[in-house]
Amino acid sequence: MAHTQIWQTQDGKLNPLVEAYTVGDDYILDAALAKYDVKASLAHAKMLHSMKILSDDDMASIKEGLSQLARQIDNKEFIIEPSQEDCHTAIEEFLTEKYGDVGKKIHTGRSRNDQSMVMMRLYMKDIFENTQQVLNRLVKTYEETSKKYSNIAMPGYTHMQKAMPTSVGVWLGAYKEGFSDVSELVSHTKKYIDQNPLGSASGFGISNFAMDRDITTKDLDFAKTQDNPMYCGYSRGLFENVVLQALSPAMIISAKFANDMLLFTTSDFDFLALPPEFTTGSSIMPQKRNYDVFEIMRGNTKVYHSLQQQIQDIILGIGGGYQRDLQLTKKPFINAIEICKSTLDLLTLMVPKIIVNKNKLDAAMTDDLFVTNKVYDLVNSGMTFRDAYSKVKKQYFS
Amino acid sequence: MAHTQIWQTQDGKLNPLVEAYTVGDDYILDAALAKYDVKASLAHAKMLHSMKILSDDDMASIKEGLSQLARQIDNKEFIIEPSQEDCHTAIEEFLTEKYGDVGKKIHTGRSRNDQSMVMMRLYMKDIFENTQQVLNRLVKTYEETSKKYSNIAMPGYTHMQKAMPTSVGVWLGAYKEGFSDVSELVSHTKKYIDQNPLGSASGFGISNFAMDRDITTKDLDFAKTQDNPMYCGYSRGLFENVVLQALSPAMIISAKFANDMLLFTTSDFDFLALPPEFTTGSSIMPQKRNYDVFEIMRGNTKVYHSLQQQIQDIILGIGGGYQRDLQLTKKPFINAIEICKSTLDLLTLMVPKIIVNKNKLDAAMTDDLFVTNKVYDLVNSGMTFRDAYSKVKKQYFS
Amino acid sequence: MAHTQIWQTQDGKLNPLVEAYTVGDDYILDAALAKYDVKASLAHAKMLHSMKILSDDDMASIKEGLSQLARQIDNKEFIIEPSQEDCHTAIEEFLTEKYGDVGKKIHTGRSRNDQSMVMMRLYMKDIFENTQQVLNRLVKTYEETSKKYSNIAMPGYTHMQKAMPTSVGVWLGAYKEGFSDVSELVSHTKKYIDQNPLGSASGFGISNFAMDRDITTKDLDFAKTQDNPMYCGYSRGLFENVVLQALSPAMIISAKFANDMLLFTTSDFDFLALPPEFTTGSSIMPQKRNYDVFEIMRGNTKVYHSLQQQIQDIILGIGGGYQRDLQLTKKPFINAIEICKSTLDLLTLMVPKIIVNKNKLDAAMTDDLFVTNKVYDLVNSGMTFRDAYSKVKKQYFS
Amino acid sequence: MAHTQIWQTQDGKLNPLVEAYTVGDDYILDAALAKYDVKASLAHAKMLHSMKILSDDDMASIKEGLSQLARQIDNKEFIIEPSQEDCHTAIEEFLTEKYGDVGKKIHTGRSRNDQSMVMMRLYMKDIFENTQQVLNRLVKTYEETSKKYSNIAMPGYTHMQKAMPTSVGVWLGAYKEGFSDVSELVSHTKKYIDQNPLGSASGFGISNFAMDRDITTKDLDFAKTQDNPMYCGYSRGLFENVVLQALSPAMIISAKFANDMLLFTTSDFDFLALPPEFTTGSSIMPQKRNYDVFEIMRGNTKVYHSLQQQIQDIILGIGGGYQRDLQLTKKPFINAIEICKSTLDLLTLMVPKIIVNKNKLDAAMTDDLFVTNKVYDLVNSGMTFRDAYSKVKKQYFS
Repeated sequence: MAHTQIWQTQDGKLNPLVEAYTVGDDYILDAALAKYDVKASLAHAKMLHSMKILSDDDMASIKEGLSQLARQIDNKEFIIEPSQEDCHTAIEEFLTEKYGDVGKKIHTGRSRNDQSMVMMRLYMKDIFENTQQVLNRLVKTYEETSKKYSNIAMPGYTHMQKAMPTSVGVWLGAYKEGFSDVSELVSHTKKYIDQNPLGSASGFGISNFAMDRDITTKDLDFAKTQDNPMYCGYSRGLFENVVLQALSPAMIISAKFANDMLLFTTSDFDFLALPPEFTTGSSIMPQKRNYDVFEIMRGNTKVYHSLQQQIQDIILGIGGGYQRDLQLTKKPFINAIEICKSTLDLLTLMVPKIIVNKNKLDAAMTDDLFVTNKVYDLVNSGMTFRDAYSKVKKQYFS
Repeated sequence: MAHTQIWQTQDGKLNPLVEAYTVGDDYILDAALAKYDVKASLAHAKMLHSMKILSDDDMASIKEGLSQLARQIDNKEFIIEPSQEDCHTAIEEFLTEKYGDVGKKIHTGRSRNDQSMVMMRLYMKDIFENTQQVLNRLVKTYEETSKKYSNIAMPGYTHMQKAMPTSVGVWLGAYKEGFSDVSELVSHTKKYIDQNPLGSASGFGISNFAMDRDITTKDLDFAKTQDNPMYCGYSRGLFENVVLQALSPAMIISAKFANDMLLFTTSDFDFLALPPEFTTGSSIMPQKRNYDVFEIMRGNTKVYHSLQQQIQDIILGIGGGYQRDLQLTKKPFINAIEICKSTLDLLTLMVPKIIVNKNKLDAAMTDDLFVTNKVYDLVNSGMTFRDAYSKVKKQYFS
Repeated sequence: MAHTQIWQTQDGKLNPLVEAYTVGDDYILDAALAKYDVKASLAHAKMLHSMKILSDDDMASIKEGLSQLARQIDNKEFIIEPSQEDCHTAIEEFLTEKYGDVGKKIHTGRSRNDQSMVMMRLYMKDIFENTQQVLNRLVKTYEETSKKYSNIAMPGYTHMQKAMPTSVGVWLGAYKEGFSDVSELVSHTKKYIDQNPLGSASGFGISNFAMDRDITTKDLDFAKTQDNPMYCGYSRGLFENVVLQALSPAMIISAKFANDMLLFTTSDFDFLALPPEFTTGSSIMPQKRNYDVFEIMRGNTKVYHSLQQQIQDIILGIGGGYQRDLQLTKKPFINAIEICKSTLDLLTLMVPKIIVNKNKLDAAMTDDLFVTNKVYDLVNSGMTFRDAYSKVKKQYFS
Repeated sequence: MAHTQIWQTQDGKLNPLVEAYTVGDDYILDAALAKYDVKASLAHAKMLHSMKILSDDDMASIKEGLSQLARQIDNKEFIIEPSQEDCHTAIEEFLTEKYGDVGKKIHTGRSRNDQSMVMMRLYMKDIFENTQQVLNRLVKTYEETSKKYSNIAMPGYTHMQKAMPTSVGVWLGAYKEGFSDVSELVSHTKKYIDQNPLGSASGFGISNFAMDRDITTKDLDFAKTQDNPMYCGYSRGLFENVVLQALSPAMIISAKFANDMLLFTTSDFDFLALPPEFTTGSSIMPQKRNYDVFEIMRGNTKVYHSLQQQIQDIILGIGGGYQRDLQLTKKPFINAIEICKSTLDLLTLMVPKIIVNKNKLDAAMTDDLFVTNKVYDLVNSGMTFRDAYSKVKKQYFS
């Protein structure tokens, strides 16, 4: 069957170049998001049912249709055509083909704007829940590995030069605390986005159609209804940005860890290693064992933030009212979330496998690391700090 | 007196080009921050006093010296020399010049790293408190102005084309809700940064020197001590970034409002205006009244995010352990905060002054805005939504 | 057949999560680039042949094999397995499977580093050539359309307020000049990248293997050999960035045009329009005709620059010597090029179709646009400019 | 004397908050640029003189006044008041105060738009000329230092792991080639911006006033007149961006060098060092010698690109016609140029001072670096590359 856009103009087809340019990858991206659309569509149908827009029979058909769709999505059998543009149209067409007039009623009281937004909002809530679990696992991993190596001394560096003594345990413990704080930040930020935009339609509600938006709020387990319909529209892209910002510290801390690992696994430092299953080789140099995984991690933290900034740039350029470039925020959002998830999963896998080269670390605990302790021996014996510092410095450089 | 860096090497002076390149503007920026350094230095002195590092007399001198410094800072009389690099050195030198050995003791148990961090942390807490007050005032302003114009109809736009009817009240109300949510986000995020880094020294504590860091935590009213000393170091730049991210939605929403105002004040729309005190003229065109203020606002929201991203880029590039580029995060942070504050203040000033051109708005409420209502009249009389949509569309385009 | 990485370690398989994380999309992206790899591989083989590393028979086999590959690529029948990582490995494996030992010789004197770089370099040269053609067509389109409407008056705006009279022809002519200058910039920048990196191997050449790199330079029509092998490596990402920077003005000017079109097609301005084949509709508002295509264009110019910046961020973070995050520059580069190409193609298609609403433009030529001309009438009659300005201003506002 | 904006509205003063927000730092930034404004103003006066708008006496006064201003600027005695907004107003007011009516004529035929643009354009041309000289010096420095150390072996790294042998000479030679290519790119890009915008006024020319713009083009030594007046306006920000893009590779290569230096000067590598005049110390650790200068350089390359992107973000957001946010492009442009210049100057100073630790480098030339050479010994004796690779690999890992 030849699908068409539901808004198809009377006077002819959309130019194919314009269609390709404006539809973009949405019909592919939506395959992953469609389950949230189905969930929200069911809640919307329940509200229409309570208003008698949908009869009991209609409601039964829609329940059946949507649960069938949910299964298709789970089995990756649900395919959206480019000409359908997005899952919103595909769902309506599925219901109409199968149940006739019932399908033609499902879009009552909503627009693709709020339909898309509520879908994304449910996805965001899932992201926050999942990421918190991932983060908590990762925190536990760092904590355990940190304890395991708490007694192994390690040089502390500032400016990439030996500074003062520390331990592998303290070093890993810093990452534990960092990721633990992100988990808190995520749980706070969740409150910001936990608002139901469904029923705001195109950003103006519908003045001659009475809906009780709180019905879908409750059914979809939102903390509250996002009242002002224009504000619902304003939050598109903005909320995506806030979600990525909340996860940003996790990526920044991952970058720091990757940088540390890349330095400490050089043959010149040789403090740490990973088993061969985590390293790669070279097409011409037989001897190589490379820690590419941390290089990609380092790069991915930049890709993540660039995707976040893509969203920011887009939303900074426009006034109120839905504009189509907002659609372009979907792809970088999904990609960024995937990068974040795979990075945290990989860390959880690798951190416990770190091999600590105690001999090399011991050899690296050279005298210069303890110079500041000499200053404090003098402080402890009554000398002022600055005099002690100057005295030790004079000795050191003479 | 010729000041010198407190870490001055034995064997000669720092090359002046290197000094200029590495010190940057810190000695200027710190003038605004020094009051937080003084506050934290006093708390640090109290801890040293409790440890008997400072005698009762020492403590009295330091109290006197620091309160004198605080007054100088308030009166903008406190000047930091480039050769002193930052306010940390300047404060120690002030105390030493005035009280001799007492000054040489104040740096005991701390490094410029944690001294700088605790200063910034106190500044951040102040920012969050102030911004919340500013935001709350702004929310109230939008709310009142929204109520004032709740009955004035206004075309709702999507894709910059007339879509459906709305009102000036709903439009302003969207901004009220947006800024109100930011205020919530700020109050949540405050918990993330409310940790005391003082006593972490250079990121490794000091193993042969026992300090009770909770003393300064209590004295400076932090929610907790940031335990792991390396994590204290990791949070440099990272926390600055999180603060700017929390305020980012305020800037994004300001950009949206500026974009709306620029459109609605064109002579072609002419829905809104501001009194002459808010508009500027041209050097060659006598008739001009320009809304530059919203153009600068639009631009400033981009500058703000670019400054935030500057911090992000810097911290993404480095591993654990203090590295000097972290110092470069100070300037964009302070500048971004100033942009945010002045933008919100200006909105608070201008929003109540908006002039609504009711005649023009009425004339703009053309029939096309009500086409969707015709669809819903049919829906209300029992037609399915999609059939109603098609029927109205056919009529409209024939 | 089960493919394996050519660098496969002796002691076991790469962890599948690490493989997925590090290989990324390269095996998909390379499908579009493989033809350049084939071309460079043929040149490389000729050099090996001239050195007698390849016999005449070897050379014949490789020629046959590579031309067969080239056909497969053209027909989109060439498939790279994720486990092969990239087209470089796939090509070697293809030749080895088909011709035995000959395939095992093709990698002599090169590494995947220089193989990948020369492939990208040839792609870049193609991009510049194609884009220049596209730009020249676009310049011609703007020029013709500009001439067509050279006599239709149009208000000139500054600060989004009416400023002085101009014409549709001058407005379109500005775009013509803008794109024309980009074409020049592209032709200059081509010289920067026109250097052959093949033979630099992993960035260090091969000290006990003598190659005449100028042979491939001539065969592949490069302006010169990129001598220093480490510099070849440094140019990875850097040259990609320079290519995207050279095209950046084209995207910036497209954004400007899109912004102009979005303003001038609002029903409130209504100066310009496009035929229905270029506009889209709404899922709930039957009357809508939206210029989404310009909203997506506006958004795409931001995506383009964000992709460019992704490359920049990655290369700014690393020292000399190949590091794996450089691989992440490939995807944003290809995506950005596609965005640029489709944007310019679309403009070429749409600009001649612009509908000029002369009546609306005439009505918009209000008196305020001519106030500055009154000033100049006074100047032409001998008054100083500033006095004339003041006099006219006083009249205007009284 | 109380200065006022030359466009001062009839009906009262600009609100001071709006004034502070919109004027920004322009009155400070312009102090450095005013000499270009004076130069262009003189050329403009000559054109007005040729048109008889200025009498011979007028012209003599203006010549005298402008050369006096030029001296004041050189001696840093020229001060612009915030209320004057910019140097354009300050120059007109200076001439009017001193010579009466003559000053009131100087703005004839121009606007602050083209006056500001021609000033910036002259500044850009100077930047390109100066930077090319700086780059050429730097290239020579790298070349000489590279030759000096051409025979000192150095491990080549990929993935931060030892790869193959190279030399200090090759390593430094890579930077020589990199900076040399930038110098070429700069000379090509100069052609793009070498266009005279003076006379385009506010972007629309002046229809009832005839000017020969080629007079100022010749006098100011521009390659051509930028014809279309709207395109002149479009190039604001755009040309600044292109200038920064052309210098971007210099900053990227500097970042790479800084990263290399930071790694090779760690005590764990210890390949290279700099004399104490280039290193700094610590406020608590007496033994420290830090290479902060390269950390700041690494950070500054990010700041540079963030400033470039600030300009990009601003210009991407607006349609044709001057809008005030374009003014915000001035500050990041000037700051970025200063960062670039000081970075290149510092490299020129430091590169010849690099201390090469031959003993450490010799010790680092371990066997693994020569494994690939073993492969090529087998290739040279007739084995296929891939078989040789496999054989050597088997031996290495057994």
